[in-house]
Amino acid sequence: MDEEPRQRAHEQLKARTIERALFASPASVTWLTGFTPPIQLGVSPFAGGPPLLWYASGEWTLVVLDSDAPAAAASGCTVVSYRGYTSSAPIMAAEQLATTLQRVTGGASAGQLGIEERALPVFLRAVLPDTNMVAIDGLLIPMRVRKTAEELVKLRENFALTDIGQATARLAVRPGQTELDVWAATHTAIQRAAGQRVPLGNDCTVGRRAHSGGWPLDVEIQPGDSFVVDLSTQLRGYWSDSCATYYADGPTRRQIAMHRTVTEALELAISLVKPGAISGEIDRQVREFMVTAGYPLYSHHTGHGVGVTGHEEPRIVPYNDMQLDEGMVIMLEPGIYFPGETAIRLEDAVLVTGSGAEILTRHDKSM
Amino acid sequence: MDEEPRQRAHEQLKARTIERALFASPASVTWLTGFTPPIQLGVSPFAGGPPLLWYASGEWTLVVLDSDAPAAAASGCTVVSYRGYTSSAPIMAAEQLATTLQRVTGGASAGQLGIEERALPVFLRAVLPDTNMVAIDGLLIPMRVRKTAEELVKLRENFALTDIGQATARLAVRPGQTELDVWAATHTAIQRAAGQRVPLGNDCTVGRRAHSGGWPLDVEIQPGDSFVVDLSTQLRGYWSDSCATYYADGPTRRQIAMHRTVTEALELAISLVKPGAISGEIDRQVREFMVTAGYPLYSHHTGHGVGVTGHEEPRIVPYNDMQLDEGMVIMLEPGIYFPGETAIRLEDAVLVTGSGAEILTRHDKSM
Repeated sequence: MDEEPRQRAHEQLKARTIERALFASPASVTWLTGFTPPIQLGVSPFAGGPPLLWYASGEWTLVVLDSDAPAAAASGCTVVSYRGYTSSAPIMAAEQLATTLQRVTGGASAGQLGIEERALPVFLRAVLPDTNMVAIDGLLIPMRVRKTAEELVKLRENFALTDIGQATARLAVRPGQTELDVWAATHTAIQRAAGQRVPLGNDCTVGRRAHSGGWPLDVEIQPGDSFVVDLSTQLRGYWSDSCATYYADGPTRRQIAMHRTVTEALELAISLVKPGAISGEIDRQVREFMVTAGYPLYSHHTGHGVGVTGHEEPRIVPYNDMQLDEGMVIMLEPGIYFPGETAIRLEDAVLVTGSGAEILTRHDKSM
Repeated sequence: MDEEPRQRAHEQLKARTIERALFASPASVTWLTGFTPPIQLGVSPFAGGPPLLWYASGEWTLVVLDSDAPAAAASGCTVVSYRGYTSSAPIMAAEQLATTLQRVTGGASAGQLGIEERALPVFLRAVLPDTNMVAIDGLLIPMRVRKTAEELVKLRENFALTDIGQATARLAVRPGQTELDVWAATHTAIQRAAGQRVPLGNDCTVGRRAHSGGWPLDVEIQPGDSFVVDLSTQLRGYWSDSCATYYADGPTRRQIAMHRTVTEALELAISLVKPGAISGEIDRQVREFMVTAGYPLYSHHTGHGVGVTGHEEPRIVPYNDMQLDEGMVIMLEPGIYFPGETAIRLEDAVLVTGSGAEILTRHDKSM
């Protein structure tokens, strides 16, 4: 139970004279409470709406579907649940949630009421006390950038899972195997290590089609193919990320040169990470290195933060003047793409420390 | 491209003098358009809100994230997309979506405007023309119960996948293997057959813990265990379902008797399916059979519909007086549970035909 996010949010809400607030976005609820419903099958047909977190003058109440109440108990918040599935009556989860929320949020108050209006469904706004409402979407984002000690524990566990996935993928990439074969072996190893189901993204594809999407298909690995494996797992509400590139029967001369350049680009990126460094400046230097080396520029970011979402601040992109600070966790992922031919991307996670960067991913990124 | 759902909805909206409507729930959007964003990783961090479908006097406009536009094109609707991910500017997907929706829905009109207020986020309601709004949540549910010819094609494809999963699970259940081993083998076979990633639920567990949840864990299969495999896949927006029970080293005498009773209960349930049959009456007769056979009553439903959601009408539950009708697709799934000891559940999907039931699942449910 991590009290620090709620403490940070409480201070910020107080400073803005927001006495009461309703959080409805999955990222906010997870960051503030640790509670995360399973995501692999989309939204439960038995839920009346998203999990909600009610704040009233420093007190926190988590409103969840009845079947989620046991998991929500670990949050340290007051947990109130509403009825979802039943076989003895029509399922009225939305009505149950509305009634429950009305009960939780009722009572007169003159102050401001914050709501996350990008995540809150219209029917739930209607049951809130009719008062001075103010949108608080994005309020937590700056607070989420520096990770707490407990968040770092979860992130480290999660990066260890992607390390296991990468080690498995390295062995699975062989001519004649398909992208789905590599994916299945990798996902299986990750879930065995975690002892549970684990949501898994992002790319698992032969390099020749790595520029477009990258979810695995029934595509056979050919001699000469590079193979890009970019893994994001979600564990205890937190996301990991890592990328490596493998070669079905050893890299070609061209791939050897590309792989060396991307390795150096990643090393350069990591060397630039320290408190006070400007996100956009890291991006600029890595892109400049790539151009000087004679390669086309990758069209994506140089990096991004991770936490309760898989892509967040600090974004390592051209326009971003955000300064790095101790406790941030950043992905760095330069790549070279020749669409239809081959592609290479390498990615590490780093923690910004007082003196520079600690690398959190430990997978083998060699050729 | 299935025009029939939009035609049914158009007639219903016209009959209610709703000139314009905004659909926001995933089930509604999928049913009306066939479009389904990937669900396995939860909501995209680059989306500004859910996919939206705008109806105006018989014209349909689908509003999606830019990266979803190619998939949405198959819907046959006008597709309008908004910018999500970019590395050249801050991600302003919510603002982009709001502006896009305002443009799509703008223009004066005196008639009623229907909204799905359980799915529409507050910030999007604010950009709609300020007119006579009416909630239309649930409007499509009665229309969705009888499947169209094209929906049946998708459902059949999907049940064929669960058949492959069940055949794999049957071979994988052996003493010393874990629940996660069975799950991995099953999921791998399903994804290979589909040639793509496939979301998969629900239960894959030793019978002794089948009463509580049932997602696979690192639990080893012991001699004497029954093993409940309940598989739901999502393919092209539609859900399948099926269940069988396997025995690691052959069933015990007690399990043989239980398995026979559940087989008979399922056969009874299927024999009761025909146009005009009352859902609650099927439920009552199957429960009565179970009690007469001397077993404890299962706490869940006897069955339920499937389509763009995994659990929908007609629910085969005690209170339900809904009559079955040709074209409905129903799961039937009696079970016997002795918590902490053993459990057996068997499940088939049936299509209600003019004369009775056609079984859509073809997996081996024998001992």
